[in-house]
Amino acid sequence: MTQGDMAKPLLRTSSEGVPSFTSTSKMAIGILGSGDFARSLATRLICSGFKVVVGSRNPKRNAGLFPQAAEVTTQLNAVNQTELIFIAVFKEHYFTLLELKSILAGKVLVDVSNSTDLKHQTESNAEYLASLFPDSIVVKGFNVISAWALQSGPRDGNKQVFICSDNRDASAKVCQIARTMGFIPVDMGSLSCARDIESFPLRLFPSWKKPFLVSFGLFIFFYFYNFIISVLHPYLTKNQNAFYKMPIELMNVTLPCVAYVLLSLVYLPGILAAFLQLKNNTKYKRFPDWLDQWLKHRKQLGLLSFYAAVLHAVYSLCLPMRRSARYELLNDAYKQVQAGKENAWVEEEVWRMELYVSCGIMALGMLSLLAISSLPSVGSALSWREFSFIQSRLGYVALMTATLHTLLYGWKRAFDKNRYKFYLPPTFTLTLVIPCIVLLSKLCLLLPCVNRRLMQIQRGWEKKAGSQVLEGLGCFTDSLPCESISNV
Amino acid sequence: MTQGDMAKPLLRTSSEGVPSFTSTSKMAIGILGSGDFARSLATRLICSGFKVVVGSRNPKRNAGLFPQAAEVTTQLNAVNQTELIFIAVFKEHYFTLLELKSILAGKVLVDVSNSTDLKHQTESNAEYLASLFPDSIVVKGFNVISAWALQSGPRDGNKQVFICSDNRDASAKVCQIARTMGFIPVDMGSLSCARDIESFPLRLFPSWKKPFLVSFGLFIFFYFYNFIISVLHPYLTKNQNAFYKMPIELMNVTLPCVAYVLLSLVYLPGILAAFLQLKNNTKYKRFPDWLDQWLKHRKQLGLLSFYAAVLHAVYSLCLPMRRSARYELLNDAYKQVQAGKENAWVEEEVWRMELYVSCGIMALGMLSLLAISSLPSVGSALSWREFSFIQSRLGYVALMTATLHTLLYGWKRAFDKNRYKFYLPPTFTLTLVIPCIVLLSKLCLLLPCVNRRLMQIQRGWEKKAGSQVLEGLGCFTDSLPCESISNV
Amino acid sequence: MTQGDMAKPLLRTSSEGVPSFTSTSKMAIGILGSGDFARSLATRLICSGFKVVVGSRNPKRNAGLFPQAAEVTTQLNAVNQTELIFIAVFKEHYFTLLELKSILAGKVLVDVSNSTDLKHQTESNAEYLASLFPDSIVVKGFNVISAWALQSGPRDGNKQVFICSDNRDASAKVCQIARTMGFIPVDMGSLSCARDIESFPLRLFPSWKKPFLVSFGLFIFFYFYNFIISVLHPYLTKNQNAFYKMPIELMNVTLPCVAYVLLSLVYLPGILAAFLQLKNNTKYKRFPDWLDQWLKHRKQLGLLSFYAAVLHAVYSLCLPMRRSARYELLNDAYKQVQAGKENAWVEEEVWRMELYVSCGIMALGMLSLLAISSLPSVGSALSWREFSFIQSRLGYVALMTATLHTLLYGWKRAFDKNRYKFYLPPTFTLTLVIPCIVLLSKLCLLLPCVNRRLMQIQRGWEKKAGSQVLEGLGCFTDSLPCESISNV
Repeated sequence: MTQGDMAKPLLRTSSEGVPSFTSTSKMAIGILGSGDFARSLATRLICSGFKVVVGSRNPKRNAGLFPQAAEVTTQLNAVNQTELIFIAVFKEHYFTLLELKSILAGKVLVDVSNSTDLKHQTESNAEYLASLFPDSIVVKGFNVISAWALQSGPRDGNKQVFICSDNRDASAKVCQIARTMGFIPVDMGSLSCARDIESFPLRLFPSWKKPFLVSFGLFIFFYFYNFIISVLHPYLTKNQNAFYKMPIELMNVTLPCVAYVLLSLVYLPGILAAFLQLKNNTKYKRFPDWLDQWLKHRKQLGLLSFYAAVLHAVYSLCLPMRRSARYELLNDAYKQVQAGKENAWVEEEVWRMELYVSCGIMALGMLSLLAISSLPSVGSALSWREFSFIQSRLGYVALMTATLHTLLYGWKRAFDKNRYKFYLPPTFTLTLVIPCIVLLSKLCLLLPCVNRRLMQIQRGWEKKAGSQVLEGLGCFTDSLPCESISNV
Repeated sequence: MTQGDMAKPLLRTSSEGVPSFTSTSKMAIGILGSGDFARSLATRLICSGFKVVVGSRNPKRNAGLFPQAAEVTTQLNAVNQTELIFIAVFKEHYFTLLELKSILAGKVLVDVSNSTDLKHQTESNAEYLASLFPDSIVVKGFNVISAWALQSGPRDGNKQVFICSDNRDASAKVCQIARTMGFIPVDMGSLSCARDIESFPLRLFPSWKKPFLVSFGLFIFFYFYNFIISVLHPYLTKNQNAFYKMPIELMNVTLPCVAYVLLSLVYLPGILAAFLQLKNNTKYKRFPDWLDQWLKHRKQLGLLSFYAAVLHAVYSLCLPMRRSARYELLNDAYKQVQAGKENAWVEEEVWRMELYVSCGIMALGMLSLLAISSLPSVGSALSWREFSFIQSRLGYVALMTATLHTLLYGWKRAFDKNRYKFYLPPTFTLTLVIPCIVLLSKLCLLLPCVNRRLMQIQRGWEKKAGSQVLEGLGCFTDSLPCESISNV
Repeated sequence: MTQGDMAKPLLRTSSEGVPSFTSTSKMAIGILGSGDFARSLATRLICSGFKVVVGSRNPKRNAGLFPQAAEVTTQLNAVNQTELIFIAVFKEHYFTLLELKSILAGKVLVDVSNSTDLKHQTESNAEYLASLFPDSIVVKGFNVISAWALQSGPRDGNKQVFICSDNRDASAKVCQIARTMGFIPVDMGSLSCARDIESFPLRLFPSWKKPFLVSFGLFIFFYFYNFIISVLHPYLTKNQNAFYKMPIELMNVTLPCVAYVLLSLVYLPGILAAFLQLKNNTKYKRFPDWLDQWLKHRKQLGLLSFYAAVLHAVYSLCLPMRRSARYELLNDAYKQVQAGKENAWVEEEVWRMELYVSCGIMALGMLSLLAISSLPSVGSALSWREFSFIQSRLGYVALMTATLHTLLYGWKRAFDKNRYKFYLPPTFTLTLVIPCIVLLSKLCLLLPCVNRRLMQIQRGWEKKAGSQVLEGLGCFTDSLPCESISNV
């Protein structure tokens, strides 16, 4: 039963004012195979109001496995009764259906299989099926849906179903069936897309690989850098044993460096893109691939930055509860008493810490808003302006606050040469490099003259007369992906 | 105006290349009743391009309540003008419509009511309506939508509308109306589903009850166990008053026990299922009900475990800021000075704490990723492999890290008999039991020989020849629900 | 290719049992313009199975910019070949299309433009287009979709597309095209809605402005109030320099006040509404506008309250790690030693802090559940009862726990006149006012007699006989938006 079926009666309603509920009987759909998927599919199709005919090699044995309403018969019978058949059989057994070739001719075969491996895949299962049954119309689809999702019904988040076929009508028909079942069909075009669709369930965070490697690299680098400065140096020079710092204190100084640099890497590509556009004096020249890639991975970089920042927060909050902190405090108290020093207060130290901790909390608070707005359900509810406001404006404010956090933490230490262990500059000075570059170049881009020029370019105006109409839309619609460019 | 209506003009477009925008006038929809729901419904229908005729007992009085575009007339007139009528009247007043029985015959009645109570419900409102108007076609639907959601429009997250009817065309027609209004209709099948649909708005976390009770039980048990050990024992034996520990310190030692055991209970059923499959040598034998239930509640168990873990983190972070901690520290300082002990440092204690705190943070960090991936919008964007990677792989790593956290916390205390108050073992030793069982049996399942066998079974291969084609799909598609089994 | 197209073959299927895949060839869609949006649109339409004809002023120059499958020709050719044309041109260039006026007559023009500014907007772009081409059928739509979203495909969260037109068929046709492309079309009614739709992408958190201002006002007020009491007073009276408290300690006492008052402001309007309903003895009398507004902003107030509460938690957790805390501790230790005081323990202080910290954590734990259930994807998965349980029941428990937190924090200080600096009452006493009013009046509403009356009113019963049928539905469906009213 599909929406299409309903068109008639509804049209009648409006034309003759009398609906007819007789024109369409239940549409019959065939299923070949009797695995979990076949069964769940049958259950769901019947619940969605379709007539289901299951073709099985051994109807008697398998009838019990299917819902009552489903007719379980021989493969031959099943195919004869239906025009649209789901092939719920492993690829390696497609050949066993060749005996049905003649009667399958002209009918729609829905290939629901997944590719078992991505490596040695020559052609998609669907294309293989199509090659076996050239006279049938093969549609790829439903492979991203699990037998479980089929049974549990669409209640748990309406999942998308990717569909493709060389026959528009067939794919549209399958689209409707999917919609009637409560899924959201997405027509991916011709059957050549089948390979992508089949490999979809095998994806493993492709868009996260590079950002993760970058973050991991940064982590390793800063961890060892801090290790040399705050563990190795005291050990070699003063023979102090500070190895106990490795699990927590080193983590706690390393994570903010990672978070801070990652955050700046979110906004650097936008800056570069803007300068490129200014240089090329057009927005229609494609960016170099590496920049394109980078722009595409900003969201992931931002989320990893947030994750590192949160861990940093938790680690620092744990500092005072550690035994080591307690013992140091006790020893200090002892020293103070011995020294007869009544007041340990150091005003400057107090202010420094109050200020940088406060900045840190604020930066984290803003980052958390960025993270929340990155949730699919939240982000999709935002208008482009809201989205770019949070991702670009708020993001830059967060970056500035983080910079302030770092500078206040550093205080005057950058200029105290006792801080240069092994002639290595304190870690925080290293982390400041990229963020400051980003913030300064952003400042340049905000200069009225530069900004106006940039807006024009991004709006599509160019130096050619008469060509303006051709530039078409894109000023707003475009700004969503590269908010840090066009919302400068 | 429904998609169906459009079929005609579009077909023309393609066939004769000339679209006709005349064929269909606005479709008229009737509404009986004039409550909030009736009004919101009218507003929304009109906004979605339908003609609305409201049937009211007192048209004059109520005309003002409805939007201008709606025609408010007598019930008789309204029914005469329309083929599809929404019954926006309380169940207890359905009988008052009996006078319209004859003209309602053959028309579609949409029952939008909710069941007022689940207990003494004999039949669904919709079935009751159908029994009153046997000649009409009753469709259940829209009851999950609030009058408010109707007015505020579909902008705020497109809600699902569950629809059922014994007449496929009628339900499909209502499906289209729902879709045109911007909702996502879900055809639930025959009118016998009406009861479920009506009770849907009365659900109160059915899937959370059992997991919550389990967590609560664990909490009570561990709280009292800790109470006996760390409050009652010192009070009775050394007459020390440690009751101040009840609000925070006891919570802080109890919550991790709950979180830790709950996490292991997430993965135990998967293990049991795998062993059962190995024993039965097939995956087609249904699991016993209790195991089935357990498998279905893993998500809830996991989230409760995460919740307890987060609370534990917050509680522990609060420890150093308490007065009690301050006073103890001051007294220790005093003692140290009196004892003239220059250095309070205990290397072993330091290492122990640095390590277990660090492990704890990591475990929490991983659990948070699991929790995020459990958000509907996030989870539905993941491929099965990504989902199972996080839920299974990452989950087990988190369980291992939590185990390490516990072991490091315990250090050598399990072997120090002074720790056995009233001969009761320290709490952490109790919590270790189930997790260790899970991890060890997981290890067995990972042994190549066992693993291979298991994969075969789960892929659907069985010892019977020839039956292989019949097994059908399911290897991947199936693995989503029981990732901890098939992604071993 | 639209679902409409499919109606025919499917109908055939059921009537004659033979599907025909010949009736419909690819539907041709025209695009005028060659900007980013035009290109992305073409790409997506082709991928969704449409035939695309692009009309360009300079076909040769622009052909390269479009996918192979798209036919790039003169504007005249493009319009002649198609019945439905996307106008991907800036508003200020619409006039350049006037030369095509005659051939555009009777065709559907889809206006995808956005309004560049909200202020000096006289009419919507779409209406302007309609005024230029009175004989064409103008449909507004797709403006909320970015060129980027078009290219990246529907995978990343199916975005909604708002559509409006004075011609139902045309808008329905565009709805289908949107659906085929994988978007969720929402028919907003007549073209007069175009202005709203065009300004949609320019929205900047309209619903957040007022709640934010309220929160900000509260923050400023409490910050200065606390500044006077805990910084200015000691400075002026005892000449103590406590300015170092400004970044953290003052924030930490200010934020909870804001969070606490905001939370009470979430439930106050519900109380007022309930009393109004009792006074009017009907629920059909509209609330005054200010109350209506207030009721609509409860969600935002709640989330801001949660945000402030979380920041408060983080700030308080930071307290012990500050230098200032360390120094004070050291000095206390010194004093204690000098005084020879062996035990610093103050049982009352200990209990006070253990208790109020514990309450605070619990309140935060509950608020976090409220916040999570406010996520679109989570909230939309809840039944009205679950939603109202969390938002109303749990919310009130959270409010009570927060009150307990405040009272325990205050302890006996409200009655200690040394706490009244400059005769100003301690801050916590001020914050208690509104919440206590809310809780007490809630208590009144819970009195059986009052409660019963209220339920009747909200169920729609009134003192007029015979009018009962007319009241219609709404008891449950209504309660979702104003849960704090009807779930009293």
